[in-house]
Amino acid sequence: MTAVPQPTAALLDGTALARELTARTAESAAELRRRTGTAPCLATVLVGADPASVTYVRMKQNSCAKAGIESRHVALPAEISTAGLVDAVTALSEDPAVHGILLQHPVGAHIDERAAFEAIAPGKDVDGVTTASFAAMSFGLPGFVSCTPGGIMRLLDAYDVELSGRHAVVVGRSPILGKPAGMLLLARDATVTYCHSRTADLRAHLREADLVVAAVGRPRFIRGEDLKPGVVVVDAGYNEGNVGDVDFDSAAARASLITPVPGGVGPMTIAVLLEQTVEAAWRQLVS
Amino acid sequence: MTAVPQPTAALLDGTALARELTARTAESAAELRRRTGTAPCLATVLVGADPASVTYVRMKQNSCAKAGIESRHVALPAEISTAGLVDAVTALSEDPAVHGILLQHPVGAHIDERAAFEAIAPGKDVDGVTTASFAAMSFGLPGFVSCTPGGIMRLLDAYDVELSGRHAVVVGRSPILGKPAGMLLLARDATVTYCHSRTADLRAHLREADLVVAAVGRPRFIRGEDLKPGVVVVDAGYNEGNVGDVDFDSAAARASLITPVPGGVGPMTIAVLLEQTVEAAWRQLVS
Repeated sequence: MTAVPQPTAALLDGTALARELTARTAESAAELRRRTGTAPCLATVLVGADPASVTYVRMKQNSCAKAGIESRHVALPAEISTAGLVDAVTALSEDPAVHGILLQHPVGAHIDERAAFEAIAPGKDVDGVTTASFAAMSFGLPGFVSCTPGGIMRLLDAYDVELSGRHAVVVGRSPILGKPAGMLLLARDATVTYCHSRTADLRAHLREADLVVAAVGRPRFIRGEDLKPGVVVVDAGYNEGNVGDVDFDSAAARASLITPVPGGVGPMTIAVLLEQTVEAAWRQLVS
Repeated sequence: MTAVPQPTAALLDGTALARELTARTAESAAELRRRTGTAPCLATVLVGADPASVTYVRMKQNSCAKAGIESRHVALPAEISTAGLVDAVTALSEDPAVHGILLQHPVGAHIDERAAFEAIAPGKDVDGVTTASFAAMSFGLPGFVSCTPGGIMRLLDAYDVELSGRHAVVVGRSPILGKPAGMLLLARDATVTYCHSRTADLRAHLREADLVVAAVGRPRFIRGEDLKPGVVVVDAGYNEGNVGDVDFDSAAARASLITPVPGGVGPMTIAVLLEQTVEAAWRQLVS
């Protein structure tokens, strides 16, 4: 018998979809500006000067600028206290010139990050990090979504991935990625399994998944041999060297659809942040 | 070969554990009364006169009385509006003589139940129905738990059921039962699968579970042949005729531990309600 070439998965192209979405966001921002004379404004808060965090914030600011969203940057010293950070965030929550707030994390181990997140007014929580946003996602209530899970849902929808009744395995359970991703999938009638570092037999769970969302932070941790043929693979991992949580080549040989890294979930995360910032501005300026 | 008798599961005895827990709660209530001159007070809110709801509220009031908790009953007409109900609940949230609030549901299809729940101050949400309580359960933050999931966790702990790394299948995804039960299990390092009415092959998921939480509202829906030998079965279902979601006899022949219905989850739900009411009163009266 001749070896049959493995089918290669089609790509879930986050770069292209993010470009489309951001073009619509830019139109909406421009329309808001025409109507009100005010541009949407995203406040970015950075504690310390971690190089990766600095880069992320700069990327978000640049993307804002391209979409006609103003940004205001608040740089705080690494040694700021929880109270100091909460005060800074509260001031932005109360400032009518700021429509959305992004607190870049991590904020440093000595700070109560949850307290800082909760200082973001729910109406300005365009990064979807507050408990109010989490509950809204979990219960299908109005509110902002966490940007990465929200970006994943938009990507799946753009490619008409059927979710109802399908088995989604979410690997990771962080408050702004794994947990809300699972809740959004559950709200769309997927059967959802949360796996994590304590899961006894991760490979067995992965092999049963129709959809895998990898959000674990371990480079190339999930491999093709762990996957069911035809699976949809979403790699939300980001590891040093721009490497995802999924071993792309082996996974692509099994999957029907897969996100590249980079160019998959990453651009969608920023696109959702921009979209929600403009949405927040509309609600605050035109009510 | 002679037929080997099937091993019969041991019972997760909710009646006995609830009695112990409530005895401690009654001591705590008495101590609070000695210290402050004030008894803990639970406000019960009933919309309409659905016979089952009337019975539930009366059971809760009776249990309160036995534990030294006062109750104040607010009976509202079935045709009350959302705004009317929100006002009534808000008044209780603001009343310093009330320490905990129980809004009996369902409240009628014309009412926005979520809005009514959200009118409960988080510090008085002793039934664990607000989005704030849900987020607290999900993120491991301080707060009250939903009573039935909280009762399940206490029952599992009382019988030293290992949760870390075990596969828990939660059947049902309601906001006050299935969803928070899964989040509490996940917080204890279980691998958690949410199944529901749209799940493609429920039986296959059940057969892989180390722990099943049934919260689906279909009498005797889960049967022994669906289960893995040695599984722990928690039946949180309640159906007409005092029948659970699990077919007890066939499930008990497979399980290592199982809750009876009645006498399993039901008494624990009330015990947790009482415990949290007294805890809320302590926080409000002694701070």
